[in-house]
Amino acid sequence: MSQEEFNKIFLHELSDLYSAEEQIVEELPNMIKAASNEELKEVLKSHLQESKMQIKRLEQIFLLLDAKPSKKVCMGIKGILKEGSNFISEFSKSNSRDAALISAAQKVEHYEIASYGSAYSHADYLGCDREIKNLLNDTLTEEKDANKKLSKLAEGSIFSAGINKLACKS
Amino acid sequence: MSQEEFNKIFLHELSDLYSAEEQIVEELPNMIKAASNEELKEVLKSHLQESKMQIKRLEQIFLLLDAKPSKKVCMGIKGILKEGSNFISEFSKSNSRDAALISAAQKVEHYEIASYGSAYSHADYLGCDREIKNLLNDTLTEEKDANKKLSKLAEGSIFSAGINKLACKS
Repeated sequence: MSQEEFNKIFLHELSDLYSAEEQIVEELPNMIKAASNEELKEVLKSHLQESKMQIKRLEQIFLLLDAKPSKKVCMGIKGILKEGSNFISEFSKSNSRDAALISAAQKVEHYEIASYGSAYSHADYLGCDREIKNLLNDTLTEEKDANKKLSKLAEGSIFSAGINKLACKS
Repeated sequence: MSQEEFNKIFLHELSDLYSAEEQIVEELPNMIKAASNEELKEVLKSHLQESKMQIKRLEQIFLLLDAKPSKKVCMGIKGILKEGSNFISEFSKSNSRDAALISAAQKVEHYEIASYGSAYSHADYLGCDREIKNLLNDTLTEEKDANKKLSKLAEGSIFSAGINKLACKS
């Protein structure tokens, strides 16, 4: 009985992720429009393309599991995106708002790192096919990379000032 | 003007965290009650005590900044906690539900890691006192440690089976 229950929880997690990705794909264009910094716009645009691919990966996983995502809305990502859109409407276009957008986007990435991390681990214990685990792991790697790119944009490098520094000075 | 704007964003982030911690302190007792595994209960109980201390640290920061937290509700953590409580009500007490509770708690930790990480970096660029940065960093360290403890509980060790394994077998 318990393995069946655990399997149900795994499908619940995958459905949550499917809804999360769909909401992210809907909201990212607003974040891209709200950003001033060209590099930030590029990172967000590239993550929008990645997120569309991540939806396809989840669809492939559901197909392999012969299951369908439930229609429920992922409440976690809904709240995180709402927080980000409130930020956008409260502050005008500036380096400071860019810094806040990075912070909002990193909350999204961390949510996904936690979720795909758990889903990968659960797939492993449930004895899922290597193909399913690889699909989850590919996305997990992209989420971690996107989070690192955002940190780098905020902190800058020896070649360019980071957005946090620009927010203090300009 | 921009530094003033960045400062406003920093206070906004601190207010969000204050509301987040208050919501977490309110919800953790339900998660503790919903857990079966004694070690998981202990980790959650210890994080409840830490969260109460983290609220006090934020109050100290507001005092040092001569500012007050706004009354707004942190939407991100509200959504994440709602997702966790839905999980609790959908599944009965079992090792599987414990695995799901770990996953829910790790989403909370990751949200806080992202938020305190940004707040620390912004405090640094804004030239805040060392005391403020230390208070933020103390909490950030606790959040990372709590997340690691939860991963360890899920994955187990050479001495004990992890909760994910128990969820598959019992």
